[in-house]
Amino acid sequence: MKDRVGIVGFRGYSGAELVRLLTAHPSVSPVLLEHRSDSQATPLVGAGAPTVPCTPEAIAAERLALVFLATPTEVSMELAPAILAKDVKVVDLSGAFRLGSAENYRRWYKADHQAAALFAEAVYGLPEFCRARIPQARLVANPGCYPTAANLALWPLVEAGVVDLACGVVCDAKSGVSGAGRKATLKTSFCEVTENFSAYSILDHRHVAEVLMVSGIEERDFSFTAQLLPIDRGILETIYFRARNVSSADDLLAIYKRRYDEPFIRLYPVGAVPDIRAAQRTNFCDIGVRYDAPTGRAVLVSVIDNLTKGAAGQAIQNMNLMLGHPETEGLL
Amino acid sequence: MKDRVGIVGFRGYSGAELVRLLTAHPSVSPVLLEHRSDSQATPLVGAGAPTVPCTPEAIAAERLALVFLATPTEVSMELAPAILAKDVKVVDLSGAFRLGSAENYRRWYKADHQAAALFAEAVYGLPEFCRARIPQARLVANPGCYPTAANLALWPLVEAGVVDLACGVVCDAKSGVSGAGRKATLKTSFCEVTENFSAYSILDHRHVAEVLMVSGIEERDFSFTAQLLPIDRGILETIYFRARNVSSADDLLAIYKRRYDEPFIRLYPVGAVPDIRAAQRTNFCDIGVRYDAPTGRAVLVSVIDNLTKGAAGQAIQNMNLMLGHPETEGLL
Amino acid sequence: MKDRVGIVGFRGYSGAELVRLLTAHPSVSPVLLEHRSDSQATPLVGAGAPTVPCTPEAIAAERLALVFLATPTEVSMELAPAILAKDVKVVDLSGAFRLGSAENYRRWYKADHQAAALFAEAVYGLPEFCRARIPQARLVANPGCYPTAANLALWPLVEAGVVDLACGVVCDAKSGVSGAGRKATLKTSFCEVTENFSAYSILDHRHVAEVLMVSGIEERDFSFTAQLLPIDRGILETIYFRARNVSSADDLLAIYKRRYDEPFIRLYPVGAVPDIRAAQRTNFCDIGVRYDAPTGRAVLVSVIDNLTKGAAGQAIQNMNLMLGHPETEGLL
Amino acid sequence: MKDRVGIVGFRGYSGAELVRLLTAHPSVSPVLLEHRSDSQATPLVGAGAPTVPCTPEAIAAERLALVFLATPTEVSMELAPAILAKDVKVVDLSGAFRLGSAENYRRWYKADHQAAALFAEAVYGLPEFCRARIPQARLVANPGCYPTAANLALWPLVEAGVVDLACGVVCDAKSGVSGAGRKATLKTSFCEVTENFSAYSILDHRHVAEVLMVSGIEERDFSFTAQLLPIDRGILETIYFRARNVSSADDLLAIYKRRYDEPFIRLYPVGAVPDIRAAQRTNFCDIGVRYDAPTGRAVLVSVIDNLTKGAAGQAIQNMNLMLGHPETEGLL
Repeated sequence: MKDRVGIVGFRGYSGAELVRLLTAHPSVSPVLLEHRSDSQATPLVGAGAPTVPCTPEAIAAERLALVFLATPTEVSMELAPAILAKDVKVVDLSGAFRLGSAENYRRWYKADHQAAALFAEAVYGLPEFCRARIPQARLVANPGCYPTAANLALWPLVEAGVVDLACGVVCDAKSGVSGAGRKATLKTSFCEVTENFSAYSILDHRHVAEVLMVSGIEERDFSFTAQLLPIDRGILETIYFRARNVSSADDLLAIYKRRYDEPFIRLYPVGAVPDIRAAQRTNFCDIGVRYDAPTGRAVLVSVIDNLTKGAAGQAIQNMNLMLGHPETEGLL
Repeated sequence: MKDRVGIVGFRGYSGAELVRLLTAHPSVSPVLLEHRSDSQATPLVGAGAPTVPCTPEAIAAERLALVFLATPTEVSMELAPAILAKDVKVVDLSGAFRLGSAENYRRWYKADHQAAALFAEAVYGLPEFCRARIPQARLVANPGCYPTAANLALWPLVEAGVVDLACGVVCDAKSGVSGAGRKATLKTSFCEVTENFSAYSILDHRHVAEVLMVSGIEERDFSFTAQLLPIDRGILETIYFRARNVSSADDLLAIYKRRYDEPFIRLYPVGAVPDIRAAQRTNFCDIGVRYDAPTGRAVLVSVIDNLTKGAAGQAIQNMNLMLGHPETEGLL
Repeated sequence: MKDRVGIVGFRGYSGAELVRLLTAHPSVSPVLLEHRSDSQATPLVGAGAPTVPCTPEAIAAERLALVFLATPTEVSMELAPAILAKDVKVVDLSGAFRLGSAENYRRWYKADHQAAALFAEAVYGLPEFCRARIPQARLVANPGCYPTAANLALWPLVEAGVVDLACGVVCDAKSGVSGAGRKATLKTSFCEVTENFSAYSILDHRHVAEVLMVSGIEERDFSFTAQLLPIDRGILETIYFRARNVSSADDLLAIYKRRYDEPFIRLYPVGAVPDIRAAQRTNFCDIGVRYDAPTGRAVLVSVIDNLTKGAAGQAIQNMNLMLGHPETEGLL
Repeated sequence: MKDRVGIVGFRGYSGAELVRLLTAHPSVSPVLLEHRSDSQATPLVGAGAPTVPCTPEAIAAERLALVFLATPTEVSMELAPAILAKDVKVVDLSGAFRLGSAENYRRWYKADHQAAALFAEAVYGLPEFCRARIPQARLVANPGCYPTAANLALWPLVEAGVVDLACGVVCDAKSGVSGAGRKATLKTSFCEVTENFSAYSILDHRHVAEVLMVSGIEERDFSFTAQLLPIDRGILETIYFRARNVSSADDLLAIYKRRYDEPFIRLYPVGAVPDIRAAQRTNFCDIGVRYDAPTGRAVLVSVIDNLTKGAAGQAIQNMNLMLGHPETEGLL
């Protein structure tokens, strides 16, 4: 008997990736939940499949083990409490429950939180960082795409004390257009994006909050720019800092190797860095290191697929942990 | 003293191309006319330039010599009579006045015409086909992009009687996304278009009407498919027919050479055909021919830039004729 | 115990797709065979995996059940006899053994055949057309990408007698760049392809031979143009003909439905046609029909992924049949 | 009478851009010089135009006023002395004469210089930085594309003392593929580049030398990564540093405004930054500033077209100065 899991927002890009991955998952089967906030765009995956109204009653009646919310924060704040009240677990792909407190949420999202009571139990779902708390969680806040790539590269080094924070850390991030969602906008229309490249949210992107929270870097020491690549999917972040207490790129790699015995992290040997292609359509985070010993300048290249490790793949990784399936099931 | 010419719809792709080309034109200067139907998207070209309200009064006060309507058909049907009433000439880039009669318009556009009286004086602005009537025209209907490429390749051959119409003519047309306009839609959003290719309006595209009208081919003998290329601008049409009364590709080229002593038509030598790059950002129509003598199978490749010869460039070519400037001014 | 199957040409795009698909195949495991003709480009998939020299001795020693030749025709003509001599089956992805005779090969490939004796046993590997002969075959000639899409759409209709051949059949084909192989050439370099679209091999593409052979259409009645899309992978063919003995698109669909109870063919309902995205990274051939009853004009849209159903996927489909595995294994 | 100027390397992307721009230049006319080192690829622009052998004799006989070398460094080192010996001026687009000394050249280009005597007179052709020396120069070393964007953004701020160099300056650079030249390579082939993004030459790109030389930043304080965008042309550099002695983005802009009264530099108002589209096919360098006053973190966005201001456009700007034409002629 497969676990039945619901997907709200299956018409969006993250939702479609959930449908695609879960359809091939050996232990669960997806149920499409139709919510009034949905656009009526044709689903990318699962077109023609039956849907169930996204109401607490229907969710209970369908005996779902878990529901994925691939929805805007406002919708997640509305649905999460109602679904949890029916004793159904939730993995929320929005930013609603990531930041630990209503106050922190208000600061970065410029809006009041509508379900602040849930911060008490919400667990930040970056398994490589805090795997222990996920299996017992009822509500997992799936990390943002940019912070996933940044944190997986940064926190082991910050923790090891080799990042000279006083000199600042720069994270120059580039993302495919699917990261902006499936809503039609002029900014994401083909003719505006093709043969172009543009920066946005310089120094004030909401995702910065997650990097600060996980990595322990202070805001004053962290410069982040989000940029739009003329590609469908994939994120590459180029991260710069001054290293101390290391004498080679191998030293940096050794820190990762001590920390990471991880199925979804691939470290590149010295001299090589990943490109976006390497991780596309996979749940891997690929990390490469470049270090100039005489001057201490270090550069990290961290790559994920924004829809997989940056959204749906990581959400399934969390689901596997929450439902007691092998963590990599359906993802390798 | 430069002629002042107005542009309605300067925020769209054709409008932006008009602004770009007219800004460099030695004999005219563009005036941006702001119409209530406009989106408020930032102009692609001329951002920050002063605009004038698009009212008949303002148009008269501005002493405009001509107004370009880069607007939807409904807006063109409303504005054209009002502007002409102020004794200002009009080049309309929409389909409103191309089809010769309200009846024909209704058939292809599935709507009633709101300014049918103007068909009496509207001239179809394909200079290579009917240049003589354009200088005296007050209202020129600028041809559609697909028909421009098709007609420039087809009509001389049909006229010469070398196209075996009974066997049918196939026009397989491919266009860049800017042909769909600048309005944000899911169909033209980056992630739906990149790495994709799709057919639409198979056998029933509105532009077919213009091909029938100019080339003299009957609808039953003409099969047309419009298709969306993952590029910004450019049209390539591959046209198939069975030829008669010719014995080589050179014979077909000779027909063109007899008909065309044209600044904006470039014929390719036997053995070569144009690609889209050849005509991009130019007002040329590039034509190549392939012919298999033993079987009579002929293939034409006709290429234009949909925003230039397919819209703004041809509109300026018409304007030059209407205002008494050299036909190629500002276009070469 | 998994069957071990060899791949020659694993550094190319089709070879990489074989590695990717076979790595996930439940019943076989891939062995990378290194041939002296290979470029030394880094493999796209399987980098770092051990390789075996591509010699008849090594192939015998490795106890391979079958070898895929993702190689140029000349290499296939050299390797196929040597491998068969060791009692190892072969699926050849080149054009070497598709055309039935050395004479036909010479006509279309402009070269003498070096292994003509094998035509006696080579089977054309289009399962939907001639599945019965494949399980017993020692040598399967995997079809070309363009003919796969064309034949799957055309032959049932030609067989049913509803294609008016005298009026001619037009196949306007568009392919992603991976169809041209992984060798670096100016024609396939990024700056020449992006924002461009071009026709090549108009009326004289080698793949035409396979369409004539399978569909039964005569060359004089078949016009084919190959064109290069600025995308990585996927083929869409727009096929035009005049239909007879049918009165609706449904009649055409009914013919397919009678012929096809096929796991890898998807028919689109009347009113819809596939785009390239639909079949990308799948082994499906998606077919849509448009028909104008009053005039008999018919248009087919046939879509495959050139690297999957057009190469590696179909090769594995053939392998499954040859080795006694379920035909769809590893492909759905 | 127009000046006649030669172009060596007219089959490459920079050479083609020179041909395109010079063909429309009112005061000069281009002469295509055929050099034995050229590939025989079809020229992008000027196909079919007559060419002259690239020999000192022919150059003298053609009475050229100046020759552009759009050639590899080794070819430039060979040709520049020979052409200068005929009293013909040279603008060299390679890196051969940019670095001031044979020693510095050897350090960054890992090769011995073959024409070191010319360093005595070679002038670095960044007009905004050292315009005064260009009109008298016989040999101008046209700057690299990356350094042009970096230096135009950085040197006024470094000079003004507002860059806290001790904390390091990060320049994260992204370029279109045409920057890699027109030679066919696997790395720049369509299928490897599309839907991808990759970093190369992290911390050790040759162009760094020019940034250090012009901006006065020390190597230990400058981290530079070059990255390949899936676009044809355009460069965007995101530059990070800690500012001091300023209290707002307006203060930074004010420094530029004091330094720059320049026809080819456009400063963006606070709150806006350029995208690549803004400068494509123009000779502009567009600069935007973002500053976080509480923490001193500053981000610059500097955009050019790598083939125009980054190569051919700037070369013509230098030519205009060297031949006594208005600096902007043929470029606006």
